[in-house]
Amino acid sequence: MMKIHHIGYLVKKIKKAQDAFEALGYVAEGSVVHDEIRKVDILFLEKDGYRVELVSPYAADSVVAGLIKTYKNSPYHICYEAEDFAADIAWLEGNGYIRMDEPTAAPAIEGRKVTFFMNPALGMIELLEGK
Amino acid sequence: MMKIHHIGYLVKKIKKAQDAFEALGYVAEGSVVHDEIRKVDILFLEKDGYRVELVSPYAADSVVAGLIKTYKNSPYHICYEAEDFAADIAWLEGNGYIRMDEPTAAPAIEGRKVTFFMNPALGMIELLEGK
Repeated sequence: MMKIHHIGYLVKKIKKAQDAFEALGYVAEGSVVHDEIRKVDILFLEKDGYRVELVSPYAADSVVAGLIKTYKNSPYHICYEAEDFAADIAWLEGNGYIRMDEPTAAPAIEGRKVTFFMNPALGMIELLEGK
Repeated sequence: MMKIHHIGYLVKKIKKAQDAFEALGYVAEGSVVHDEIRKVDILFLEKDGYRVELVSPYAADSVVAGLIKTYKNSPYHICYEAEDFAADIAWLEGNGYIRMDEPTAAPAIEGRKVTFFMNPALGMIELLEGK
């Protein structure tokens, strides 16, 4: 069974967002990672058992440059950690999820692979390769 | 200190969304509540310590009728439960949060009051009156 790993949260300015989340009691896990594959800065924070991933585009051709124009500062997906990455991809594809990209390493998550899916009832989710 | 209560999640069709979340291992808390103040159907589900609130507009003049056109099926806010509702409102207003509405009863959460805020670095959050 897949387990929730984090809530992805788009922000325009990652330092200001970090300050605002910390003022609410969140604690940063590590520091900002510059993901040159996706052209985003990423920071994980945790509070009350909820992990939030701040995602902030730093270039006009970032993978989330389009999304942030629509969503502005906002949560935008839930990420699930796979128990068996290939089997979970197959299960999702067999249960109404359309894969949006090829699995690609995530520098902010120990280089583990991630891939995104779209579901007509839920919207977008992320699947993270297990440890 | 405020505690995270849930992740608000917009969905177009609440029954289809419930089915899809349950297939991922979420467990419903109670059943769908018809909130006639906001003209939305609401259902809470829980998985891995994360509580998700499905919010689905049922009328063209629902409070989220505009949001769902932009966000489609997507998470859209984090809700915090107040320790002291009046003091937490005052703290948020003194720390860069602009209140968007008057505190109003939430039929889906035991009639407790909720109110929404906008922050320029984080976007929208909800504050829920404590028990």
